Amino acid sequence: MSENTEQQYKQTRAQSLAFCEPLNDEDCSLQAADFVSPPKWHLAHTSWFFETFLLKPFADGYLTPDSRYEVLFNSYYNGVGEQFPRPNRGLLSRPTLTDVIAYRAHVDAAMNTLLSDQAHPEQATIAARTTLGVEHERQHQELFFTDIKYSLAVNPLLPTYIEGTACSPIPNRPSEWHRYEGGLTEIGHFGSEFCFDNELPRHKVFVAAFELADRLVTNSEYQAFINDGGYKRPELWLSDGWTTANQKGWQAPQYWLQHEGAAAEYTLHGVVPREADAPVCHISGYEADAYARWAGARLPTEFEWELAAVSSTNDADTNSVASSEVASYHPRASNGHAGLRQLYGDCWQWTQSAYSAYHGFSPSSGAIGEYNGKFMSNQWVLRGSSCVTHRDQARASYRNFFYPQDRWQFSGIRLARNTSGNP
Amino acid sequence: MSENTEQQYKQTRAQSLAFCEPLNDEDCSLQAADFVSPPKWHLAHTSWFFETFLLKPFADGYLTPDSRYEVLFNSYYNGVGEQFPRPNRGLLSRPTLTDVIAYRAHVDAAMNTLLSDQAHPEQATIAARTTLGVEHERQHQELFFTDIKYSLAVNPLLPTYIEGTACSPIPNRPSEWHRYEGGLTEIGHFGSEFCFDNELPRHKVFVAAFELADRLVTNSEYQAFINDGGYKRPELWLSDGWTTANQKGWQAPQYWLQHEGAAAEYTLHGVVPREADAPVCHISGYEADAYARWAGARLPTEFEWELAAVSSTNDADTNSVASSEVASYHPRASNGHAGLRQLYGDCWQWTQSAYSAYHGFSPSSGAIGEYNGKFMSNQWVLRGSSCVTHRDQARASYRNFFYPQDRWQFSGIRLARNTSGNP
Amino acid sequence: MSENTEQQYKQTRAQSLAFCEPLNDEDCSLQAADFVSPPKWHLAHTSWFFETFLLKPFADGYLTPDSRYEVLFNSYYNGVGEQFPRPNRGLLSRPTLTDVIAYRAHVDAAMNTLLSDQAHPEQATIAARTTLGVEHERQHQELFFTDIKYSLAVNPLLPTYIEGTACSPIPNRPSEWHRYEGGLTEIGHFGSEFCFDNELPRHKVFVAAFELADRLVTNSEYQAFINDGGYKRPELWLSDGWTTANQKGWQAPQYWLQHEGAAAEYTLHGVVPREADAPVCHISGYEADAYARWAGARLPTEFEWELAAVSSTNDADTNSVASSEVASYHPRASNGHAGLRQLYGDCWQWTQSAYSAYHGFSPSSGAIGEYNGKFMSNQWVLRGSSCVTHRDQARASYRNFFYPQDRWQFSGIRLARNTSGNP
Amino acid sequence: MSENTEQQYKQTRAQSLAFCEPLNDEDCSLQAADFVSPPKWHLAHTSWFFETFLLKPFADGYLTPDSRYEVLFNSYYNGVGEQFPRPNRGLLSRPTLTDVIAYRAHVDAAMNTLLSDQAHPEQATIAARTTLGVEHERQHQELFFTDIKYSLAVNPLLPTYIEGTACSPIPNRPSEWHRYEGGLTEIGHFGSEFCFDNELPRHKVFVAAFELADRLVTNSEYQAFINDGGYKRPELWLSDGWTTANQKGWQAPQYWLQHEGAAAEYTLHGVVPREADAPVCHISGYEADAYARWAGARLPTEFEWELAAVSSTNDADTNSVASSEVASYHPRASNGHAGLRQLYGDCWQWTQSAYSAYHGFSPSSGAIGEYNGKFMSNQWVLRGSSCVTHRDQARASYRNFFYPQDRWQFSGIRLARNTSGNP
Repeated sequence: MSENTEQQYKQTRAQSLAFCEPLNDEDCSLQAADFVSPPKWHLAHTSWFFETFLLKPFADGYLTPDSRYEVLFNSYYNGVGEQFPRPNRGLLSRPTLTDVIAYRAHVDAAMNTLLSDQAHPEQATIAARTTLGVEHERQHQELFFTDIKYSLAVNPLLPTYIEGTACSPIPNRPSEWHRYEGGLTEIGHFGSEFCFDNELPRHKVFVAAFELADRLVTNSEYQAFINDGGYKRPELWLSDGWTTANQKGWQAPQYWLQHEGAAAEYTLHGVVPREADAPVCHISGYEADAYARWAGARLPTEFEWELAAVSSTNDADTNSVASSEVASYHPRASNGHAGLRQLYGDCWQWTQSAYSAYHGFSPSSGAIGEYNGKFMSNQWVLRGSSCVTHRDQARASYRNFFYPQDRWQFSGIRLARNTSGNP
Repeated sequence: MSENTEQQYKQTRAQSLAFCEPLNDEDCSLQAADFVSPPKWHLAHTSWFFETFLLKPFADGYLTPDSRYEVLFNSYYNGVGEQFPRPNRGLLSRPTLTDVIAYRAHVDAAMNTLLSDQAHPEQATIAARTTLGVEHERQHQELFFTDIKYSLAVNPLLPTYIEGTACSPIPNRPSEWHRYEGGLTEIGHFGSEFCFDNELPRHKVFVAAFELADRLVTNSEYQAFINDGGYKRPELWLSDGWTTANQKGWQAPQYWLQHEGAAAEYTLHGVVPREADAPVCHISGYEADAYARWAGARLPTEFEWELAAVSSTNDADTNSVASSEVASYHPRASNGHAGLRQLYGDCWQWTQSAYSAYHGFSPSSGAIGEYNGKFMSNQWVLRGSSCVTHRDQARASYRNFFYPQDRWQFSGIRLARNTSGNP
Repeated sequence: MSENTEQQYKQTRAQSLAFCEPLNDEDCSLQAADFVSPPKWHLAHTSWFFETFLLKPFADGYLTPDSRYEVLFNSYYNGVGEQFPRPNRGLLSRPTLTDVIAYRAHVDAAMNTLLSDQAHPEQATIAARTTLGVEHERQHQELFFTDIKYSLAVNPLLPTYIEGTACSPIPNRPSEWHRYEGGLTEIGHFGSEFCFDNELPRHKVFVAAFELADRLVTNSEYQAFINDGGYKRPELWLSDGWTTANQKGWQAPQYWLQHEGAAAEYTLHGVVPREADAPVCHISGYEADAYARWAGARLPTEFEWELAAVSSTNDADTNSVASSEVASYHPRASNGHAGLRQLYGDCWQWTQSAYSAYHGFSPSSGAIGEYNGKFMSNQWVLRGSSCVTHRDQARASYRNFFYPQDRWQFSGIRLARNTSGNP
Repeated sequence: MSENTEQQYKQTRAQSLAFCEPLNDEDCSLQAADFVSPPKWHLAHTSWFFETFLLKPFADGYLTPDSRYEVLFNSYYNGVGEQFPRPNRGLLSRPTLTDVIAYRAHVDAAMNTLLSDQAHPEQATIAARTTLGVEHERQHQELFFTDIKYSLAVNPLLPTYIEGTACSPIPNRPSEWHRYEGGLTEIGHFGSEFCFDNELPRHKVFVAAFELADRLVTNSEYQAFINDGGYKRPELWLSDGWTTANQKGWQAPQYWLQHEGAAAEYTLHGVVPREADAPVCHISGYEADAYARWAGARLPTEFEWELAAVSSTNDADTNSVASSEVASYHPRASNGHAGLRQLYGDCWQWTQSAYSAYHGFSPSSGAIGEYNGKFMSNQWVLRGSSCVTHRDQARASYRNFFYPQDRWQFSGIRLARNTSGNP
């Protein structure tokens, strides 16, 4: 096994525990909606993944600490078997957090043995699956942040995940359009680095010429949309979006609030003043689409986004969790370089593309093939990465996907338009 | 105004009434689900469309028989104003059927005057909107059939819409794959004939080489899928499809049943024996997708379908409502020519394409722009036409769209695969 | 068979049809909520009752016109067998109204034969059950009125059931308290007249001294409750009532509305001015209870009501459907005699008594025993009768029962209090 | 203040904490249904009760540790103000358990000062309310047990609250009928001991002669009901009960299960063999009623129960939580004395009486008056006490009340019948 794989395994596993440090035991069991999971469950499920797809098939004599974990911590792999009902994950006070941490240690010990077995006949598969498991755990680290933010926000005390030092506001430059000529091009991951199966195969797509905004839409721009009746004008909305917005009573992004008379928002540092030039965040795809229509623009397709991102030389990620000692856990304004700004590390960017298979897509066989493929309906693709995405997952071909009504991710807006200037 | 437009107006208006002939007044108010409308409501709404978009703006001095119809018979045009709640359309015993027929006559009289006014300054717009209204009414004629079928089927008496002569079963030839080379091509309507705004603009798309089945999947083939555990094997299904199928308890297509121990299905002629070689019908997109995966194939993209249909010389429609004196109101097996069979006139064909805007799509301004554009999320495109589609709406570029869980349309399956033979 | 029974049978059967006269076929299929039934269904079910409990067991050689009616028109008799789902009764466009009228005639012909068979060995049972069937049909006549009122009111056109001449408002005398000494008394039906099983057996109850208002609470009195924040003050409400009122958004009685700026209400004659001195009507038990608490009083128990009613000499019913040529279908103010006014013929009067079995209650054996007994939970007793109750059902021992959240009956308030003057 | 009050205060407060000892922090936040509360919330709410009704009005200078607790821990007192939504109580990870225990200590310190203030001008009110607060906390101690049992049972690991020693099964004597002559009697609390307001005023009721079973229905008797099709025969059920049982899929009492092929049940000691002669427990009122009908008997009225209990000399409570060092937390068979057995300390006993106000009932003024009165609709009275009721709350006049569909309390069946031997 490459030292790199082993090292990434250890770092990632340690990182998951470290992220839970600021929380108490009760926080670790919180689940405020069906679509979020408690921190403890994330810790357990990521261990289950290694146990299920590596230890049970490849580690001779491996014994699970509790055979019932197979059902309890299975997320959605029908090929593995039954699953404990998702909406009840927050009701699993047992196994306790201590039990789950012991489960992690048990899995880690067995994984270390497996990874150091240079003579294992399935070494290649083991390496590949370990990498997949590491990437999987990084995705759950991001979900850890979005989920605990959502669950803590239900509490009227609006608790902080961790105390933070307020950052100085950064003034934002006006948005500029960058022009791309498009043409018959190739889309999808290339090169030897890891990618998920849904980024493949690289395949031909025709993309017409288009323009892309060089930065994300800001809070003050989104406020102007609201002030202009954005949430009250059906002509700006998709029909399903209009229905959803009314049913849920949306009037603003998920975590916006008024605090002592001033514009504020709830963050993982608690309630902070709402920075006018920071990217608007925690909006649904429907809101992103309505904003774009209001602005005389449109959302980019995922192909436009990828094509622009590939050609960008400015993909430096300055705001993601793993990138610095002092994480902000919140998107920041950008006043930087002249290229496309805020591609990564601030907000995921909604595209207008429905999440579907690339031409020639073929999922892995067996339960592991359920990782991505079976979700290819009703969701929209988001591109880029956010302030809580692992830095190594920030790449041009990464396809994130959520339902257009979802708002609990760090999701924002980058505008596009045709070269005619029309949407 | 061209005589053709006037003639089409008259024919279409008369046809809508004729289709209601076999029904009694009570049938005409039936609404068995939120997503269907009563026949009477279709009769009224199609008149409302002409009143709203032609008579009120262009017919000088036009008086509506009842100003409250503006709200009652508005389907979803927020630009026009409020709408009576859709789930309650079946509760409008007043205006009576007689009142609605009088409303139709009132609108027809005013339309005839307007259409014969050769000197009207807005003649071009009037002609274009009249054509749109005619096409709109043809769409509602199809919905009339699918909706009344659904509503009558709730009645345990399983009433017939109209008595029918049983057709002799047609033996079906085995399915064959037709190969298409694809390439950088143009998709979308071309020529001077009418089309809906969502078929435009014609634009470049790259389509890889593919293969398409020359006929639709049959009842006996679908029965084999069921016999092989098709409804019990999650690995064949999209995740949302699996959830939906289980929640709704799907075990077979919508109208399949056992009658006196034999395979039967409910049709507009009542319960009839289920013909083994006839196309399977009234299935959701999820079921179509699961069947395709089980068959080692996939659903076509809408671009593949259009490209193949455009190149087909066999698009003769032998089974649609308007095409013969004796309509079958049910898809039929085909043993015909050597080209692509059953493109039109039997079942709409689910594609894997999410319904979205063509590059450069621009809806009309005003309320009429709500016709198609605002529905471009969460639905799937179906191509072709069915046994209850107006013959003149059978064309290669027509984009029908429904939610993947919808089953009450005459929807079936045409398989596709890559030239490698893989899905 | 007594001529009286035969005559009542014929009158009642004819009356049910006569009540439908003002309606068209579409009205007769209306069902705007699960808890109401279409007029056509009432016509069919009351026939089903005679068919099921008299013709099938006792009429030798009786043939039903359609064996499927047994399920279609069974309301809730599990002892008879399955029932067509109640919420779908409005979806039965077939059998048509004409079919159902023919079904009635078919049943009537067979019943006439049966009733005229003086030598039938089960003559006593036949007579008793015929009387029960007649009383049952009278109950459905009342439901016919309350149900069609509810269903028509969903229509924004607010149609009239029948045109009516406006009655002159009647000024109301102030309410006065009548004192009753109570004591150990007997409650329940006595005498040889018909009563339902739930009015029996007559049994001993101790009733403390109490006072009862001599008339019903009026619209203007109820308006004062609203003006005083009645719907906004939780301390006036039962906990379940407060929850219900908020969930449903209650702000006023069911059919109150503003019409051209004036207080109005929807009646079977359409929208009419709201008469200040007429009894408040169409309120839930929760609202009645809250009003009583606000007024410093309470609802009577059903025993108090019966005890007072039995001793009243003024039970003349001047406002019920069957009592005059010109029915008002609406409760009226009373300025009459000095005793208890408005006991019968205006509004049913909510009591505080939960509907339960009298000591020694024993339902009939077989399916017919499901008539009343199985509903003895969660409902409240109402006493008196309303403007749409058959005159012959106005008696002191009659126990009507509905859920405390129900508002579609003609239900109002008569106050009670203890002799101390406290509630 | 009497030493007794102070002592009871201290004992009760200490007891609540002691009951939480076997649980970890995560258990203390569990809430598996809207109708249960987490242990932590019970700890906080009972403190809130003293703070709200004693410290804030009477303890000069009292400062709450957190003013937001007023809303967070208000259960249902609209007179105090808003309440945090009940279904979300399990989502309050903050304040932490440690914080809540500190809150208790803070309240206890202030209460001790207040109670020791012999010169306080409101001493009588303080004493009365302290007693009420103690009784209130004892009720929550019972809810603590029923709620945590319910919440732990959702976990497929079926955790134990506390390890227990298996008790030896006790053989049960056959049930015998005890006869009571009834008559005009007085019902309600008498004497100077504490009682809740709903036990008052003592008032006259006529009770006919009746018979009462001398013990509770056992598991084996209930099994016979099931074996005889009890859950499949609608004629045994109230209509609402039948609907509920089918909707919820009831087939057996709440915690019955099969364990390794044998009859078992889930208890606070985990899964244990189901003892044939122990009382059946955790059944709804609907099931109790259906069982009674099947057994040719009926449920007693609350008056019958009280009358019998008052005359019983055998009300010794041998199985309640506070009565012994080793609590069983589960009802036990009884082979004891010749009188009425199992009146207290095993299962609450469903009566057929709807929960309503005694004649002359008058709740306290202010928010504290919301304690009992506003719940007097839709619930049924249970009498006796259970294995988790505080011993001092076992008395003949105590009126417990739950909805007839509730099953999570320790609720069982004692049969009654008329002296004729009929139900």
